[in-house]
Amino acid sequence: MRVLIRVAYDGTAYHGWQLQPGEKTIESELNRSLQELFGEEIHVIGASRTDTGVHSLGTVAVFDTNSPMPAEKVMYAMNARLPEDIRVVESREVEATFHPRKKPCKKTYEYRIYCAPTENPLKRNYSLYSRYTYDIDRMREAAAYLVGEHDFKSFCNVHTTAESTVRTIYELSVNCAEAEDGSTTITIRVTGNGFLYNMVRIIAGTLLEVGRGRFEPSYVKEMLEKTDRREAGPTAPARGLTLVRYEYLPEEK
Amino acid sequence: MRVLIRVAYDGTAYHGWQLQPGEKTIESELNRSLQELFGEEIHVIGASRTDTGVHSLGTVAVFDTNSPMPAEKVMYAMNARLPEDIRVVESREVEATFHPRKKPCKKTYEYRIYCAPTENPLKRNYSLYSRYTYDIDRMREAAAYLVGEHDFKSFCNVHTTAESTVRTIYELSVNCAEAEDGSTTITIRVTGNGFLYNMVRIIAGTLLEVGRGRFEPSYVKEMLEKTDRREAGPTAPARGLTLVRYEYLPEEK
Repeated sequence: MRVLIRVAYDGTAYHGWQLQPGEKTIESELNRSLQELFGEEIHVIGASRTDTGVHSLGTVAVFDTNSPMPAEKVMYAMNARLPEDIRVVESREVEATFHPRKKPCKKTYEYRIYCAPTENPLKRNYSLYSRYTYDIDRMREAAAYLVGEHDFKSFCNVHTTAESTVRTIYELSVNCAEAEDGSTTITIRVTGNGFLYNMVRIIAGTLLEVGRGRFEPSYVKEMLEKTDRREAGPTAPARGLTLVRYEYLPEEK
Repeated sequence: MRVLIRVAYDGTAYHGWQLQPGEKTIESELNRSLQELFGEEIHVIGASRTDTGVHSLGTVAVFDTNSPMPAEKVMYAMNARLPEDIRVVESREVEATFHPRKKPCKKTYEYRIYCAPTENPLKRNYSLYSRYTYDIDRMREAAAYLVGEHDFKSFCNVHTTAESTVRTIYELSVNCAEAEDGSTTITIRVTGNGFLYNMVRIIAGTLLEVGRGRFEPSYVKEMLEKTDRREAGPTAPARGLTLVRYEYLPEEK
């Protein structure tokens, strides 16, 4: 049977999702736990790769096994064999032809920026730290230009292997919450049908530059039009980024 | 001069605050950074000790040095020599007679419980994970009995060395926040003039048992009266606990 799992992880201690010789990755830990569990060599197929230090609340992956274990129980058996910074939060049987990267989907990422005069060690792995203040209204104005279907080539790492750099962003919001101690946390939340290599981090880096006044909000429209990575802002550090939601869309008949 | 520092830390990787031979502690890291910085052996005096895995947003400590470095700059120089899970968030000169444990103060701790059907790896070091649901109103009713000046012997580790087990709790609140994914985080927040060994964790463990229905809220009053550790609930795990505020009160003339 083919089993779908949904995996949450703290990416701090891992060299990203993807298998890499000699490195501890999310994929290598999942494969190891399945080998221990079922006594057979199993390779998961993931829906989404993340870089070193990026987190996830529910990346989808599938694998095949001949085990008679009910698919719903697999998550508990895997969790007993995984380190506590990786948790399988769902497991269920899917059709044998189900491929996690070949179905229309909606992904949501959040990028967090912690703004305060001094760093907070409890936030260090889950947000970018900044001493600056940002103009949230400017960031929102810039964000609006990115919503919709666009060629995001300017917002993509030049080493991409994607055939097309056209993607659709359904929603892109910028919110700011103030804590009791006066610190603020900015959350950039983006939902789209897929994201190019480093795309969310480049969007975050660009919106932050707009918020600090380096770019005019309307210049983001030109960045898109120029389809040149050098036009957009810097790639924000990985640690502020979390994949928060991964949904499959109902397929058209 | 005597320098006061305020130290924030993620306690996950440390054997608590206090120096222990052969163990990495917050105190040992602070002493090491000061030795590197000033080239002299320096021992900090902390205001508050925390157990392994407990966090802090601002524990006060002092030390003496003959260095001409302005006290306000010390925090930056220390941070350059400390691991990123320990941050000095304030440094300033104080009177040579200032002793951080011998002044009237107000401390605030927060204990967090993350409630959801599955664990969240991003919360694992900063909250207790629970599958259960809790009756917040019952917890609040029980909490009210603990506010005020009481003998907290039932809420103190039996290995305490405290001369008196009488303490005053100024405020004790229980709040519950629901996230978008349906998970809830309960925050128990307590402010007092001082806390006994494990006192906050025993209060948290007791309120959780009340919230699950094991104790009636009014039974907390009896627990206090019996002055016997066996009467109160279990000691909740360290990882959910954070010292969030440490203030000195104006001294009476």
